Amino acid sequence: MQFLIKKPDQLLTFVSVMKNEHALFRYEEVAAKVASIIKNLNLNAGDRIPSVRQVSKDLQVSLATVFQAYHLLEAKGLIISRPRSGYFVNAAAKNTLIQKPAGKYIPLPSQVTLNTMIANMLKNMREFGAINFAIVAPVNELLPISRMSKALRDTLKDPTSDSFQYPLIEGHPRLVKQIVRQTFDWGTGLATDEVLVTNGCIEAINLCLDAVAKPGDIILVESPTPYGILQILERLNLLALEITLHPDTGLDLAQLALAIEQHQVAACVLTTICNSPIGCAMPRENIIRLVELLSQHHIPLIEDDALGDLSFSHPRPLPAKAYDTTNNVLYCTSFSKTLGSGFRIGWVSGGRYHEQIKRLKYISNFFTNGILQDAIGRYLETGLYNAHVKNMKTALQQNLARYMGSINRHFPDEVRIAAPKGGFSIWLELPATINASELHRRALQEGIGIFPGQIFSTSSQYKNYIRINYCLIWTTKIDWYLEKLAMLMKKYKSS
Amino acid sequence: MQFLIKKPDQLLTFVSVMKNEHALFRYEEVAAKVASIIKNLNLNAGDRIPSVRQVSKDLQVSLATVFQAYHLLEAKGLIISRPRSGYFVNAAAKNTLIQKPAGKYIPLPSQVTLNTMIANMLKNMREFGAINFAIVAPVNELLPISRMSKALRDTLKDPTSDSFQYPLIEGHPRLVKQIVRQTFDWGTGLATDEVLVTNGCIEAINLCLDAVAKPGDIILVESPTPYGILQILERLNLLALEITLHPDTGLDLAQLALAIEQHQVAACVLTTICNSPIGCAMPRENIIRLVELLSQHHIPLIEDDALGDLSFSHPRPLPAKAYDTTNNVLYCTSFSKTLGSGFRIGWVSGGRYHEQIKRLKYISNFFTNGILQDAIGRYLETGLYNAHVKNMKTALQQNLARYMGSINRHFPDEVRIAAPKGGFSIWLELPATINASELHRRALQEGIGIFPGQIFSTSSQYKNYIRINYCLIWTTKIDWYLEKLAMLMKKYKSS
Repeated sequence: MQFLIKKPDQLLTFVSVMKNEHALFRYEEVAAKVASIIKNLNLNAGDRIPSVRQVSKDLQVSLATVFQAYHLLEAKGLIISRPRSGYFVNAAAKNTLIQKPAGKYIPLPSQVTLNTMIANMLKNMREFGAINFAIVAPVNELLPISRMSKALRDTLKDPTSDSFQYPLIEGHPRLVKQIVRQTFDWGTGLATDEVLVTNGCIEAINLCLDAVAKPGDIILVESPTPYGILQILERLNLLALEITLHPDTGLDLAQLALAIEQHQVAACVLTTICNSPIGCAMPRENIIRLVELLSQHHIPLIEDDALGDLSFSHPRPLPAKAYDTTNNVLYCTSFSKTLGSGFRIGWVSGGRYHEQIKRLKYISNFFTNGILQDAIGRYLETGLYNAHVKNMKTALQQNLARYMGSINRHFPDEVRIAAPKGGFSIWLELPATINASELHRRALQEGIGIFPGQIFSTSSQYKNYIRINYCLIWTTKIDWYLEKLAMLMKKYKSS
Repeated sequence: MQFLIKKPDQLLTFVSVMKNEHALFRYEEVAAKVASIIKNLNLNAGDRIPSVRQVSKDLQVSLATVFQAYHLLEAKGLIISRPRSGYFVNAAAKNTLIQKPAGKYIPLPSQVTLNTMIANMLKNMREFGAINFAIVAPVNELLPISRMSKALRDTLKDPTSDSFQYPLIEGHPRLVKQIVRQTFDWGTGLATDEVLVTNGCIEAINLCLDAVAKPGDIILVESPTPYGILQILERLNLLALEITLHPDTGLDLAQLALAIEQHQVAACVLTTICNSPIGCAMPRENIIRLVELLSQHHIPLIEDDALGDLSFSHPRPLPAKAYDTTNNVLYCTSFSKTLGSGFRIGWVSGGRYHEQIKRLKYISNFFTNGILQDAIGRYLETGLYNAHVKNMKTALQQNLARYMGSINRHFPDEVRIAAPKGGFSIWLELPATINASELHRRALQEGIGIFPGQIFSTSSQYKNYIRINYCLIWTTKIDWYLEKLAMLMKKYKSS
């Protein structure tokens, strides 16, 4: 027996462990064996496991059997594959976060008063931050820089380009056509006149909320919810009514139904796939039920799908809009998370509010610039988007595994983690004695940027939660900063 | 005596008319002679008059005297010069529009309900319009296409470019630096932290109004006012209180003072230089008085200076912001009118509301894209902006002269015209029997897009006014369409 290697980048020869066992034939047996060995060897997230070929050779089973075994382990979330790189131990949290079950008690709608706090945080983080785990934008290493740059150059070269003039309000026809193509998977898909290009997804959500609600209205949101949504509610003087998210299945539908019964709700804003900060995804049947429920009650659903393409499932689960038969879903998304947040190009399909949203867009800033739309349209025409996103997701998954490994190693034992099903964020519950805002402040003094749970809710229920984003590509520096953050927690806890 | 040539592009040899007169020495005499001959020959706007050299030779007076004479005529608005092209008859309206004197009566603040009408107009115009005199954006012929394209290519080439990432919320440092440089003429000028880049000027105005007013507040606006401003007031549920504009001196300050006395005013939105549709400009002393008056009453002034760089005066008059010593002016502008409306890049300097405006911008759409900011910054770094704007203004002035000539020739005699002091618009008062909305509808059936006076006010006082923009470069086709429009007017009037 060999228990040789634990270094992440070295090929583990743990197959010798298997050799002494009885012959394995069925792929489930192979899978169980690999799983137990990963556990026994105390491998860390991100550690490499042997190739299919190696296992097949060592165990004298067919390649197909090992492939099947690995697929099973992948489906169970124990390992992840990276094309042309092999297989790695996946990020399994030491302690999985479980949301407290939602009771029959529906909280009262709350006014939002977070804008000042968030503005100060953003400002301070910029001034003092050395490493920013609060950032929620893909770094250049994850982006198709050269292809997109070429698309931009082509936009400028094309003599028919009317880049200097006002584009059509709906968006540049080249981009709109490609957007429509992307929705072919949805079954019926969208028509070109159902698309409006915006300055990113957050503008789309602003326009939707402005179209469906008036000051004082009650809006259902997730809990925890992206702070950007809460900021819009505050701006528009809307009340937030928070519905519990479960890290595994997402929105609590029973609680949603109760809230609708007990309150006059104007709209619902949520993410069905890969929300931030919690990274959960609703099962297909729940999404269908959600769409039906809200449609029955004529409550428009504003769906924020900006992170949906980064779901670790492949192909990505369909958004709620794909199941919308009553024009009740206002779908918002952007290319910020997959092509670059610098472009500020998103879009909205506003269902029965679409014309009204278009009008609000015109009043707000007339049009979205055509140059960057044309360039993204050209990039999408290459047909490389899906392959790029697939590669990006694999890189993110491996990155996540590294972060999770480091968190598991360093953070206090009581920390509970919601393992994300996509996106950029890890949501952590800290020991109850830690106030996340204070930790945020102390971390910032050490140059570490994190976002405290307080900004993801109007209640104080997440005061001992933090969000850590794994956008930054893994280096030992990151491990060092996570360890430092862990030390701060331990020091704080006992202080 | 010769009364030979009236064709615009042929050199008039009207100097022979002068030959028979007594010798001229003083430049005022030369000027008076030229003026009377222009009148007697019934020359049209845009017709060429002889060169300084030619007149000097024929009259045997010094070049300097003729130059002085021509300068005098230019100052009086009778002729215009175009570098390297010579001198032309300027657009003198047959009948000059005079705003009825503003009485002591201040209108009641009104709710704005124009959005549906304007949205329908824009839609119809796109579907049926063959020629669009409603467009208010410089066409490619007026823009520095190749220089700006080069700047964009340089943006992409630069390896240090972080175009794919979120820019700073304030704006790309390269652009902000150049913006600050542009304000050096103002005396003190702005600091970099007083600038916020936006998606065009209209976004800047949205943010300012959102920052200073709450639903139900009264906002002072010009009458006529750009319909985009009225649309924002409607969106934000603000009331409009209209202050009369005089075609020569702009805002009626006495009426403004009365309005402030009689109403609780939350803010004032206006254009001091080259507003649209009327194209007037306030004299310097009026601007200073305006700034003082509003500052004394703590009423923030939101200044829309998007067209200010296109003032026909050279150098352009300073905006109100240049005289602001109390941080009471919220200055909004953009590069849309001089570099291309497709970029959607503007900026705001929000005075004492600047931090609040920044926060609202972040909530609305985070940031303005960095790529186009970087490119415009690079273009400005070349130092060619001022020369470009000067050329553009000369081309516009000559274009205007052509339009005015055509309007003078074709339109009914009762039509009164406000000769613009810059910008893109001609504002016309039609015979009282013509309803501009109906004319707009009939013109559209003939493929002609114009905007009716009704959309520039909450009252019905401009129901027999239209705005014709002279953005499209002059061709005989335009003359043909203006003639067609004139025929529609005449037919309508007698129907």
